[in-house]
Amino acid sequence: MSMKDECGVFGVFGNKDAAKLCYLGLYALQHRGQESSGIVSSKDDKFYVVKDMGLVADVFDADSLAYLQGSNAVGHVRYSTTGSSNPNNIQPLYSKTSKGKFAIAHNGNLTNAYKLYHELKASGSLFQSTVDSEVILHLIAKSKSKSILQAVKDTLAEIEGAYSLAIMGEGFLIAARDPSGFRPLVLGKLKDSFIISSETCALDLIGAEYIREVAPSEIVLIDKDGIHSHQSTQKPKPSYCIFEHVYFSRPDSIVYGETVHRVRKEFGKILAEEYPVEADMVMAIPDSGNSAALGYAEASGIPFEIGMTRNHYVGRTFIQPSQQIRDFGVKVKLNPIREVLKGKDVIVVDDSLVRGTTAKQRVQAIRASGARSIHLRISSPPIRFPCHFGIDTPEQDKLIAYNKSVNEIKEFVGADSLGYLSLEGMLKAVKTIEPKKFCTACFSGNYPIKVENIGKYSLEGKNIEIYDQKKRKKQTK
Amino acid sequence: MSMKDECGVFGVFGNKDAAKLCYLGLYALQHRGQESSGIVSSKDDKFYVVKDMGLVADVFDADSLAYLQGSNAVGHVRYSTTGSSNPNNIQPLYSKTSKGKFAIAHNGNLTNAYKLYHELKASGSLFQSTVDSEVILHLIAKSKSKSILQAVKDTLAEIEGAYSLAIMGEGFLIAARDPSGFRPLVLGKLKDSFIISSETCALDLIGAEYIREVAPSEIVLIDKDGIHSHQSTQKPKPSYCIFEHVYFSRPDSIVYGETVHRVRKEFGKILAEEYPVEADMVMAIPDSGNSAALGYAEASGIPFEIGMTRNHYVGRTFIQPSQQIRDFGVKVKLNPIREVLKGKDVIVVDDSLVRGTTAKQRVQAIRASGARSIHLRISSPPIRFPCHFGIDTPEQDKLIAYNKSVNEIKEFVGADSLGYLSLEGMLKAVKTIEPKKFCTACFSGNYPIKVENIGKYSLEGKNIEIYDQKKRKKQTK
Amino acid sequence: MSMKDECGVFGVFGNKDAAKLCYLGLYALQHRGQESSGIVSSKDDKFYVVKDMGLVADVFDADSLAYLQGSNAVGHVRYSTTGSSNPNNIQPLYSKTSKGKFAIAHNGNLTNAYKLYHELKASGSLFQSTVDSEVILHLIAKSKSKSILQAVKDTLAEIEGAYSLAIMGEGFLIAARDPSGFRPLVLGKLKDSFIISSETCALDLIGAEYIREVAPSEIVLIDKDGIHSHQSTQKPKPSYCIFEHVYFSRPDSIVYGETVHRVRKEFGKILAEEYPVEADMVMAIPDSGNSAALGYAEASGIPFEIGMTRNHYVGRTFIQPSQQIRDFGVKVKLNPIREVLKGKDVIVVDDSLVRGTTAKQRVQAIRASGARSIHLRISSPPIRFPCHFGIDTPEQDKLIAYNKSVNEIKEFVGADSLGYLSLEGMLKAVKTIEPKKFCTACFSGNYPIKVENIGKYSLEGKNIEIYDQKKRKKQTK
Amino acid sequence: MSMKDECGVFGVFGNKDAAKLCYLGLYALQHRGQESSGIVSSKDDKFYVVKDMGLVADVFDADSLAYLQGSNAVGHVRYSTTGSSNPNNIQPLYSKTSKGKFAIAHNGNLTNAYKLYHELKASGSLFQSTVDSEVILHLIAKSKSKSILQAVKDTLAEIEGAYSLAIMGEGFLIAARDPSGFRPLVLGKLKDSFIISSETCALDLIGAEYIREVAPSEIVLIDKDGIHSHQSTQKPKPSYCIFEHVYFSRPDSIVYGETVHRVRKEFGKILAEEYPVEADMVMAIPDSGNSAALGYAEASGIPFEIGMTRNHYVGRTFIQPSQQIRDFGVKVKLNPIREVLKGKDVIVVDDSLVRGTTAKQRVQAIRASGARSIHLRISSPPIRFPCHFGIDTPEQDKLIAYNKSVNEIKEFVGADSLGYLSLEGMLKAVKTIEPKKFCTACFSGNYPIKVENIGKYSLEGKNIEIYDQKKRKKQTK
Repeated sequence: MSMKDECGVFGVFGNKDAAKLCYLGLYALQHRGQESSGIVSSKDDKFYVVKDMGLVADVFDADSLAYLQGSNAVGHVRYSTTGSSNPNNIQPLYSKTSKGKFAIAHNGNLTNAYKLYHELKASGSLFQSTVDSEVILHLIAKSKSKSILQAVKDTLAEIEGAYSLAIMGEGFLIAARDPSGFRPLVLGKLKDSFIISSETCALDLIGAEYIREVAPSEIVLIDKDGIHSHQSTQKPKPSYCIFEHVYFSRPDSIVYGETVHRVRKEFGKILAEEYPVEADMVMAIPDSGNSAALGYAEASGIPFEIGMTRNHYVGRTFIQPSQQIRDFGVKVKLNPIREVLKGKDVIVVDDSLVRGTTAKQRVQAIRASGARSIHLRISSPPIRFPCHFGIDTPEQDKLIAYNKSVNEIKEFVGADSLGYLSLEGMLKAVKTIEPKKFCTACFSGNYPIKVENIGKYSLEGKNIEIYDQKKRKKQTK
Repeated sequence: MSMKDECGVFGVFGNKDAAKLCYLGLYALQHRGQESSGIVSSKDDKFYVVKDMGLVADVFDADSLAYLQGSNAVGHVRYSTTGSSNPNNIQPLYSKTSKGKFAIAHNGNLTNAYKLYHELKASGSLFQSTVDSEVILHLIAKSKSKSILQAVKDTLAEIEGAYSLAIMGEGFLIAARDPSGFRPLVLGKLKDSFIISSETCALDLIGAEYIREVAPSEIVLIDKDGIHSHQSTQKPKPSYCIFEHVYFSRPDSIVYGETVHRVRKEFGKILAEEYPVEADMVMAIPDSGNSAALGYAEASGIPFEIGMTRNHYVGRTFIQPSQQIRDFGVKVKLNPIREVLKGKDVIVVDDSLVRGTTAKQRVQAIRASGARSIHLRISSPPIRFPCHFGIDTPEQDKLIAYNKSVNEIKEFVGADSLGYLSLEGMLKAVKTIEPKKFCTACFSGNYPIKVENIGKYSLEGKNIEIYDQKKRKKQTK
Repeated sequence: MSMKDECGVFGVFGNKDAAKLCYLGLYALQHRGQESSGIVSSKDDKFYVVKDMGLVADVFDADSLAYLQGSNAVGHVRYSTTGSSNPNNIQPLYSKTSKGKFAIAHNGNLTNAYKLYHELKASGSLFQSTVDSEVILHLIAKSKSKSILQAVKDTLAEIEGAYSLAIMGEGFLIAARDPSGFRPLVLGKLKDSFIISSETCALDLIGAEYIREVAPSEIVLIDKDGIHSHQSTQKPKPSYCIFEHVYFSRPDSIVYGETVHRVRKEFGKILAEEYPVEADMVMAIPDSGNSAALGYAEASGIPFEIGMTRNHYVGRTFIQPSQQIRDFGVKVKLNPIREVLKGKDVIVVDDSLVRGTTAKQRVQAIRASGARSIHLRISSPPIRFPCHFGIDTPEQDKLIAYNKSVNEIKEFVGADSLGYLSLEGMLKAVKTIEPKKFCTACFSGNYPIKVENIGKYSLEGKNIEIYDQKKRKKQTK
Repeated sequence: MSMKDECGVFGVFGNKDAAKLCYLGLYALQHRGQESSGIVSSKDDKFYVVKDMGLVADVFDADSLAYLQGSNAVGHVRYSTTGSSNPNNIQPLYSKTSKGKFAIAHNGNLTNAYKLYHELKASGSLFQSTVDSEVILHLIAKSKSKSILQAVKDTLAEIEGAYSLAIMGEGFLIAARDPSGFRPLVLGKLKDSFIISSETCALDLIGAEYIREVAPSEIVLIDKDGIHSHQSTQKPKPSYCIFEHVYFSRPDSIVYGETVHRVRKEFGKILAEEYPVEADMVMAIPDSGNSAALGYAEASGIPFEIGMTRNHYVGRTFIQPSQQIRDFGVKVKLNPIREVLKGKDVIVVDDSLVRGTTAKQRVQAIRASGARSIHLRISSPPIRFPCHFGIDTPEQDKLIAYNKSVNEIKEFVGADSLGYLSLEGMLKAVKTIEPKKFCTACFSGNYPIKVENIGKYSLEGKNIEIYDQKKRKKQTK
C-alpha cells in the first residue's frame, strides 16, 4: 500500500485534562498521519500551542503537555504530500480574528481552495501556510455575520470538497462535516465532557463513550450549555469513502456504523467466493491483510497461517519519504518464515495494490522462502483513479491498474494467480450503508462532485519554503 | 510479559559494507534490547566507534554509518537493569591492550564477575563501566599468553555463567559461547564474508546464509584465512535457555535448530490437549501469543479470531522504564474489538505470565468489551524463579507464580479459567534438543550451574553515575 | 546598562551570495538584538526562510545558508520585550499577498499599531504574530493600489511612530524610514549589488561601500534597474535617536554622518570639563565606557588605565532573561584588577545609568579591590522617561533618575562623587546634526510625536502562546 | 595569536555548593580551553560525572549542576590538538581502582607518557582515552603502596614533563605540580572550604581568598583535617612558563606572584624603550595587546587610542578549527575605525606573532582604513621553537620566526617597521621571579628537561576514533 490518508482530527470540550486526552487521542489516530502533530488548547480567552514535525510521541512530553492549559483542545496528525513538509503547514492552524481566536483541524481536501485562495488574496488576506485549510480560517474571519455559528455556516457555504473539521474558538468547539461526508467524524462523551474524533478507536483509548457520527452537512456546536446540532446551508448527499474500510481506519474502529474488522473479514469471505483456489494455507500481509485473510480462510476452509513476521521496531513503510529508504523499509519490516512456506501452495491476502512495486518485492520474498505457488488476493478492486477528497494518491499513471490489465499485473508482481475483490462484492460487504452512498471514485472514476483545478490543494506551496532544522539531522547524503 | 533479554550481538568479518550490515543486523535484533545501540568497526589497525543510548534507528544515520570505516564490525543492542542506564555501559566495550585493540559484544551474565572484578582491581586494573562484560576485556589484556586465541581461552577459563560473545580484534573476529550455551549464537555467510548473530532473523534481513550454531564451549576464530573452530578448556554441558522459544527470539528465527514459530505453535497444540475448554473463539494477545494461539485453534478446532488490534506506533511495553508510563503503554498498545468479543466465550492465549498485572488489565479490557467468559491459556509453565543467565527477571517475590497457586492467579487476573502449559509439554514440543539439555531454571528452580553473589552482575554501578544529556529531555516531572 | 534596542535590519539586492552576506551583516549587527535571528532570501518568485530563536551563529550554519537560494535577501536580529518570546514573532515576517510575496524586517515601534490592528481584524484579517510589524504586511496587502511603490506609500501614510524598514518583494528591495528618522538606516554598495543596513559596521564587514543614510520619509526602491529614491506622503521632521550615539550603535559605525567612537570620546571630553575631579587614574566600564573614558582622560590629563578585565566568554548582561542569571552574569563578566586599583583615587566612566543596580555592584566590586575613592562619570544625562520609538526601557518608576536626585543616586550606587553629562554638553558633541533634530525624550520627556496607547506595541501577545521547544532545555528549575 | 593552552583545572573541597563553585571556576578559566568541559563531584563514596564537548555555558545547566551532588568536586576545561577531538578524552578522567574511586584533572604534557603507556599496556592495563593524563590514573591504581599519598608519590616519581594536577578521591582532594612548575596552580580558601585553581581570576569570581601557589614538586593533600603539604620524591627545579604572562593567563590573574596586567604593561614600557618610533598614536590589537599597548603609550608619551573595535559576539579566533572559518573569524572579530586611523602614523601593539598570517590580515585592514604608516610592536620575542610542556604550538616550520628574519617578517606582514621585545627585556619585566627560573624554550630553544618522543603526547590517538554526535551538526560541507 502506498496511499496516504492526510489527517486525523481530535477535539475535547470541558475536561480539565483536555490536552492530555487530546494527546492520547492523537496517539490512537497516529496511523492517519505521521509527519506532524499539534495541539492547541484554550483556557478562557487564552490559547496555547504546541506543534512540530514528527510523531505524537516525539512532539509531546510532560513539559509540553503541562504547558497546554485549559479544558478545551483540538489536535491534529498529518501526512503531507511531497514538497510541503513546511513547518507553517502543521495543524491545527490558529489565528486571532475579529471573532476571537480560532484553531482548526481539518481532514480532507477542498476542491475549490485554489479559487478561494486567489479571491481572498485579492481582497488583502495574507497567507502563511500552503494548506487549503487556511482558506477556512480566512473565510470565518471575513464573514459579515456576528454570530459564530452563522460565520461558520457562511464559510461552509463557500467551500467545496471534503472536510471533517474540529474548530475551537473562545468557549466553544465545533465539529462539521461536508455534505458528502467523505471522511469520518464521530462524537463521544467522557463524563461531562465532549469529544470529537476521526475514529472511534481514539474514544476507546481514553475510555469515552461513542455517541454517533457527525452527519453529512451537520454542524455540531459544543459549548457550556451542551451539544447543539445545526445544518449547514448545503443539502447532504452522502458519499462516504469506502477506502476507510479497505485500509485507512483501524480495524477496531466503528466507521459508518460498522466495525472495520468485520467488514474486512467479509471482504475476505466474498473474495474467497469470487476467486477460489486450491492451496495449503492462507496468509496475510501483516497487519493490513489480517482481517481479510481470516475471512478468506474461514470461507474457503483452507488453514490460516502466519507466513511472515513483523519487526515491531519499524513503522509503516511510507513514514520514510525517500524511495531509497522506503525500499529498505520494505525489507526490514516483514520477514517470511521459511519453515511455514517451504513447498506450500500459498494464498496471500492484502488489502490493496497501488503501484505494485511493494507487492512484487513481497511475492519475490515469499517465493524465495520456498513457496511452491503464490496466489495473490486483493480485498478491494483495482485502483485506477486519483482521489481528490483527502487521500494522497500517486499520479494516475503511477497506478499499476491504470496501466495494466489484471493479467499483466499478475505477471508484474510475479504471482501464480491474482484476484481482486469486485466492486459489487466490496459494496455488498457493508451492511449499514447502501452502495450508492459510497464514494468509489478511486476504483470507478465516478467522482461524486465536480473537481476543479486538480492537484491545486496546495496553495503555491513551492514558493515559500521554510527550513526545517530538525529534519536536516536525519537526511541521507 | 515483563522479562527482558539483556542483549543482541552481531558481527561482520570481511565485507566492505561491514558497518551497514551490522546496522541492519542490529535492526533485526532490536527486540533483544532497546536501551542502547553501538557499533565498532575496524579498518586495518584503526577502530571506529558509534554508540549511544536509544534505538538503532535513532543512534545511527547516514553520517555515522559512513564514519564507521573498514570491513569488520561488531554491534550490540542492550536492555539494561535499573540503575545502570550509564552511557559508559553501552556496548560494544573497546580498549587498547597489549594485544592490540579489542571490541567486545556480550549477551549473558557472568556469575563470578564480582569476584573477578575485585581481583582485577586489586592488581591495578581501572574500571570504567559497571557491566560484568568489562571483566572479559581486562582478562584478555592481562593474559600472559601471546597468542590471541590462547588469551581468549585463558579468559574463558576464568569466567563463569552465560556468555555469547562477539570479539573483534585487529584483523580477526571471534565468536564464543559458554559451556552451557545458555544464550543463542549463530554463524552465517554472505558471499565471502562471515557473520555472527544472536538470531537467524538478522541473517535473513541481510540476505546471509545460515551456517550453524556456535556450539557450547566453542571458540570460532574468523580471520583472512577463513573460519577456525577451537574448543575452550571447559567441557560443554548444554543447558539452552528454553525461554528463547517461549518469548525472546523472533518467531521467524531458527533457534537451537528449530523455527521458533513452529515450536510456539506446537506449544499451543499441546496446551489445547492439556487444557481444553469449550468456547466460541481462540484469540492471541498480539503478537506474542500469535503462534501458540494458532496452534491452540488448530488442535482444538475452535476458530481463530482477532480479538485485539495493535497500535503500530507503540513498541513493546517495557521500552518505557517508569511504572506510570508502562501502564499507559499497556492501554495504548492493544485495543479489544467489541464486535468480535461481544457475547462470546473466548480463549485467550499468551506466552507467559510474570507479575500478572498486565494480564489482569487485558482480561479486564476484554471482559469490558463484552466477552461472556474468558479462558486464559499460557503457553509456558508458571515462572517461579529468577534467571541468572542473561534475562532480567523481577525479584522473586514479584513473580506472581512464586506467591500464588494457579487458582489464585486465575482469581487475580479475573479469568474464568486459567491453564499453563506443563513443563513436560513444553519440553516435548521441541524436536531437536533433548529435554535435559534445556535450562528450565525459571520454571523449575534447577539452576544448571552454581550461582554466587546473586544480583552482583553490576560492578558497584551506583557509585559512579554519569549524566545522560539526552535522557533529561524526555523525563517526566 | 539595561536598555535594549529592538532590532537590526539588513538587506541585499542583486548578489549571488545574498544569504551569506546577509548572515555576515546580521553577525555585525548582533549587538542590536540577541533573541532571534532570521533571513528570507528570494530567487525569482521563490522565497526561502530560515528563522529561529537564538544568536546568528546558532541559527545559521552551512546547511541552512545553502538552503537560502537567490540573489536577494532580508535579515533581522531582534531583542524582544517580556512575554513575547514567541517563535511566530521572529522577523523577517513574510506572506503571500495579492501583490506577490513579501518579507519585511522592521526596527522601531509603531505608535498606532494597536488601533490599526483592531481595524484590520475587524475587516477580516488574520493575525499570526503579536508584533506591531505585522500590521505593515497587512496594510500592504490591503492597499488598493496596484503599484507596489504606491501600496508602500499608502501603508506608510497609515502608520505612525518609528520604523526603519527593509522590505523584500518579488524582484525588488525597499528601504524606508519614518519621517522622524528615529532609528538609523544606511545604504551601501558592493560591486553591482546594493545593501541596506541598520549600521555601517555591517557594511565594513562585508567590504561594502557606504553610500549614504536613507533620509527621513524616504522610500528607496531597488530593482534590476538600480536604485530609485521616492518620498512618502509624510513630511520629514528629523528627530534622530541620540541614544544610538550614547550606547546602541557600535563605536566603529558611522551614525547620522559621524563615527560613534569620536562622538563618545567627545562626550568624555565635555564630561571632564563639566565634572572635573582630582584622581590617580581614569578607567572605563569595558567596553561600553571605553571611548568616553579615553576622552575624559585626554581632556583631564589623568592617565587612562585598565581597572577591570572582561571574561570574553560572556555576552552582554541582558542576554539572559531571568533576574537570577543576570546577577550571575554581572559577576562573571568583569573582574577588577586589584593591583591597578589598590589605594587609588579612581574615575570610572560608563555610558549611562538605567536602574542603577548594576552600577552599584560594580562600584562595590571596585571598592572591594582597594580603590580609595570612586568618582563615577556618566557620559549621558539622567534617563527619566521611557522610549516609545524602538528601545525597550524599563517602566518609568524603575528608572533610578525618575525617582532620585543625582545626589541620591550617588548614595545609592555608593560612589564618592557622581557626574552626568549635561543635555547641552551631549548635544554639542555631535557636529553633523543640529541639536533640535535629535530626539532626547528619554532624558527630557519631550516626545517629538504624540504617543497613543502607550505599551500596546504588542498585539494581545499574551493570548496565544506558542511553546518553544528549544528554550525548555535551558530553563532553570 | 594561534598558540593554545591545553587546560584549566579547578577543584573544591568541603563546600556544599562544590559543583556550582566548580562551574563558576571553569567559567572564569574558559580562556584556557574551549573544546570540552567536565566536572566530577563526590559525596561520600559516590561520584557524579557531567562531561561533554563544548563551552562551560553549553555543557552545564541547572539540571546537570543539580545532578552533581556532594561537597567535593574537580573540573576541567580543555583545548585539544588536531585529531583527538575524542569524547573519551574529556577530562576529568575517572575510574574505580583498588584504592577507591579517583577523578583527575591535568594541565600539562607528560614527556614520557608514550613509554609509560606501552609499559602499562604490556602489564595488562586497558586504555580508554588517548590523552597522556590517563597514564597517571593507571600508575596510581598499580602502585603497591596502600597509602594514597604514597601512591601519588610513587606515580609522580614515574612521570616526567609538565603537570599541574587536581586529583579527587573518596574523601580527599590533592593538588600537585611538577618539579619545574611549568604550568601555574594556586590554592584558595572560601570560608571553611579549599579551592585549587589554574589561575586566581577563578578565585576572584567565587569570592575565595588567594592563599598561595602550589610549589614545584609539592603535593598538597586536602581532607577533613585540613590542608597538608608534602614533597614529591623529585627535587624542585623551577622553570615557569613565561608565556603565561605573555598571553595565556588572564590579565587580572596573579601568576607566579605578580598581576599579569602589570607585567604586560611593563613589557610594553620596555618595548617602547627598545623600539621607539615617532607616531601619532598607540593602539592595541584588542584585547590581547591592551596592557602592553597602554605601557608603550605611557613610556613613549604617545597617545593611546582605540583603533579597532571588537564584535562581542565572537570568541577567540582559534575556537573554530577549520582554516576557512578561521579566516572568517579574523574578519568578523575586529573592525578598524577609519575616523581614528585616517592619515595617522600608528603604533600597533600585540602580544606575540606565531604564523604571521593573522597579523598580516590585520595590518592590511588597518592600512585599508587609512593609516599612513604602521609600526608593529610585539611584546614578546620571536617564537622559534615548539613547546612540549602543555602548549599546543604549530609544527616548527609553521612558526614564521623559525623561517624568517625580523626584516622578512616585517615585509611579510606589510608593516612599516617591526620590533619584538628582547628576551632580556621580557625577563626583567617580571619582578618576583629571577630570569633563570623561567622556561623560555619557545623563544630560546633551551628546554629545561630532556624531551623524548616529541609529538607523542597522544597515545595512538588516531587508532580508536569516536563519533561525536554533537559536532556533526555544525560541520561545513
